[in-house]
Amino acid sequence: MNFEFYNPTRLIFGAGNLKRLGKEVKRIGRRALLVTGGGSVKRNGIFDRAVASLEREGITWVECAGIEPNPRITSVARGAQLVRDEKCEVVIALGGGSTMDASKVIGAAALYDGEPWDLIGHGQQDWVIPTETLPVVTVPTLAATGSEMNCGAVISNDETKIKSFVQTEALYPAVALVDPELTLTVPKDQTAYGICDIIVHVTEAYFNGIDDTPVQDRFAEGVILNTIDYGKRALADGNDLEARTHLQWASILALNGFMAAGMNPAGFPVHMIEHAISAHHDITHGAGLAIVNPAWMRFAAKVRPAKFVQFGERIFNLKPKGSDDMDCALAGIDAYEAFLKSIGCPTRLSALGIGDELFTRYAEDSALVLRDEDGNLLGRPTMSKQDIVEVLRSAL
Amino acid sequence: MNFEFYNPTRLIFGAGNLKRLGKEVKRIGRRALLVTGGGSVKRNGIFDRAVASLEREGITWVECAGIEPNPRITSVARGAQLVRDEKCEVVIALGGGSTMDASKVIGAAALYDGEPWDLIGHGQQDWVIPTETLPVVTVPTLAATGSEMNCGAVISNDETKIKSFVQTEALYPAVALVDPELTLTVPKDQTAYGICDIIVHVTEAYFNGIDDTPVQDRFAEGVILNTIDYGKRALADGNDLEARTHLQWASILALNGFMAAGMNPAGFPVHMIEHAISAHHDITHGAGLAIVNPAWMRFAAKVRPAKFVQFGERIFNLKPKGSDDMDCALAGIDAYEAFLKSIGCPTRLSALGIGDELFTRYAEDSALVLRDEDGNLLGRPTMSKQDIVEVLRSAL
Repeated sequence: MNFEFYNPTRLIFGAGNLKRLGKEVKRIGRRALLVTGGGSVKRNGIFDRAVASLEREGITWVECAGIEPNPRITSVARGAQLVRDEKCEVVIALGGGSTMDASKVIGAAALYDGEPWDLIGHGQQDWVIPTETLPVVTVPTLAATGSEMNCGAVISNDETKIKSFVQTEALYPAVALVDPELTLTVPKDQTAYGICDIIVHVTEAYFNGIDDTPVQDRFAEGVILNTIDYGKRALADGNDLEARTHLQWASILALNGFMAAGMNPAGFPVHMIEHAISAHHDITHGAGLAIVNPAWMRFAAKVRPAKFVQFGERIFNLKPKGSDDMDCALAGIDAYEAFLKSIGCPTRLSALGIGDELFTRYAEDSALVLRDEDGNLLGRPTMSKQDIVEVLRSAL
Repeated sequence: MNFEFYNPTRLIFGAGNLKRLGKEVKRIGRRALLVTGGGSVKRNGIFDRAVASLEREGITWVECAGIEPNPRITSVARGAQLVRDEKCEVVIALGGGSTMDASKVIGAAALYDGEPWDLIGHGQQDWVIPTETLPVVTVPTLAATGSEMNCGAVISNDETKIKSFVQTEALYPAVALVDPELTLTVPKDQTAYGICDIIVHVTEAYFNGIDDTPVQDRFAEGVILNTIDYGKRALADGNDLEARTHLQWASILALNGFMAAGMNPAGFPVHMIEHAISAHHDITHGAGLAIVNPAWMRFAAKVRPAKFVQFGERIFNLKPKGSDDMDCALAGIDAYEAFLKSIGCPTRLSALGIGDELFTRYAEDSALVLRDEDGNLLGRPTMSKQDIVEVLRSAL
C-alpha cells in the first residue's frame, strides 16, 4: 500500500452557508468572475442571494453565464478572456459539476497563454498540465460530481467530439462552500442522476483498486449505503434537508480522494467510456453512467468475482456461498441495476436513443489518456477496444 | 451537520519511503533541524538512513535529540533556539508522537519572540495561538498518535505539572512521510499502547459527537475493527509488515480530522483526564488512556446508551435487545476492556502505582481549556469535578 494524498481545499459544509460567501471570498480577492450554468440559479433566487452576499462585503463581480451541462472548451475560453479583460482575482463557481469543472479550467486558462484545450488531456503529444490557477471557490447546487473538493475537471470539445479531463494539484479549489439547502430545488431526474454519479465514483475506486483495503472498503460501502438510503428519501421528498445534506456529503466523500486513498485504482474505465458517449450525445453524465456501470460490472466480475461478491453481500444483504460465488456477484449487480431503474435512471442505451453506429469510435476515444502501452483502457481488467464494444453491446 | 474541514498536509505513505526523505525535504529547505527522542532511532539504524538520504541531496542538518516521551516545553525552547542559532529552514521529526508534537511547537516557537509556553493552552488569559511556523516534515516511527498529519501538539510543563495542548491550522506539517517499515522494531508494550491510543482517538469523536452521522460511524467502526485485527497480528509478529502498514494507516485515519468531519465532538474528555494524570506520573499516553477510557465509557453510557449499544453490536458482535439495552452497552465496554487487557495494557490506576491522592488536582487540570462556562469538562455529557473524581475512583 503505497500512495500519496494531498487535498488542500478548505471545505465549509452546512445548511445556510450561502450567506457566508462574501466573507469567504473576501479573504481571497476583491473582484470575482461568477460562473453559472443554464439559468436555474436565477430562477430559484440562489444567484441573487450569492450576489447580495458578495456585495455586502464590497466584492465586485462579472458573470460568465451559460456553461453547458457538458461544459465546452469554448465556454472556458470565454471565461478566461473575461477574467483577463475584467481583471478578476477569484473565480466563483455557482452551479453543478459542469460549472465547477469549467471554473477550474477557466482559473488555469486565464494564466496560460496558449489554447485552453492544451490543458485538457486528449491524447496529444504535449499535454500542458496546469501548474497555477486563479483561486477558485466552488458553491455546488447539486449533489453529484464531487467536483467541489477535488482537482479534476471534465471538458468537452464540440468540434472534435472529444470529452476528456485534467486532474492535477494546481486545480484544487481554494474553498468549497457547500450549502445543502441549495439542492432542495433539484428536480427528480437530476437528483437520480446525481445519486448514480456518486455511487459510480465509489465503485470505480472499489472495483479497480488494489486487493486488501479493508478500511477503505468499509468506508466506500458506507458511502454507497448512505447514498441509496438518503437518495431514496431525497427523491420521495425533495425538501427533506437531512436527506439532501447526507447526499451532498456523500458526493464529496465519494471523490475527494480520501475514501480511495490507498486503493490506488488502476483506472476509471466506466467514466472513460461514458465520456466518449456523451461527447457525441450530450446526455447527462450520471444517466450515461447508469447505463455503462452495470454492463461494465458484469464484464469485470468474471475477472475479479470476490469483490463483486462482497458488494452483493454488503450492499444488498445477499448471502454468498463463498467468495467465488458468481451467482451472488451477478445477483448483486442485478440488484444494483434494479435500484437505478427504480429511481428513474436509464439502464440501456436504447432508452436514450443511442444505437451501435459509433461503438468503435467510443471504444477508441475511451482509451485516449488512461491507457496502457498497447492502447488498452486502464482498469481491472484492462479493456481492449473489442472488450469495450462488447460491454456497450450488452447495454443496447 | 455544519463543519469545516481543512488539512493541507501532504501524506506520502508506504513501506520503503524513508529513502525519499532527502528529496522531499529538498523541496522545502536546505538546512534542517532533525528532532529525535530517546535514542531508539540511533540503535535501530533509522537515524543513519535518514541522515544518508538528507546528505545525498545536499541538505545540512543539526540534531535536537532527547525529546522526552511526554515532551517538555524546555525541550521545545531548546529546539527553537537551535533553529535560530543554526538558521534552520525546516524541522524534521524522526520519532513517535512526542517527537512530532515537539517539532510542531519548535517550528512555531522559533518564529515567536516570547516564551514557548505561551503557545500552549493551559487556562491562561492570553493564549498566543500560533499563526506561522517553519515547515515541518514528520517521519513517524510508531503507529499511535496520528500526529503526523494533524495540527495538534501536546506538551508538558514539568515545573507547573500541567500537560496541555495546542491545535491550530498553522501547525499542520507540510509533509508526512510515512514508512511503516520504521515501526517493525517497536516493542510489544509500545505497540499495544499505540493500539489503545488509535482506538481512543476514534472513540472520543464517536461517543462525543453529534447524533446521526451514519457514514462517519461506519468509517470509525472500520478503523476500530481494523486496529483490533491488525493490532493483534502486529503483536503476534512484530515483523508482519502488512499488519504494521494497516496499523499505521489506522493511526492516521483516526486523527487527521477526516473521519470525524461532521461528527463535531463536544470534547475530548478522556484525553483531557489522561493528560492531567500523566503530567504528574510521566506514564505512556496510550497506557493512561487504557485506564481512563473504559471507566469514562461506563459513565457516559448512562447518558447516551444507544451509541454504546451500537459500539457493542458492531465492534464485538453483541446482539442488543434494543437501542436502549444497557446490558449490551456495558457488555461491549467489558469486551473492549478485556481486549485492552489481553494485549497487555493496564486497565487500573493501581497497575501503574497511582493512588487517589491527587484526584482533585487531576479533575481541576482536566478542565483547564476544554470547559464550559461553569468550568465543567466538555464532552457528552459535560463532567463536573466530582464526575471526574468518580470516574477515576472507578478505575483505581
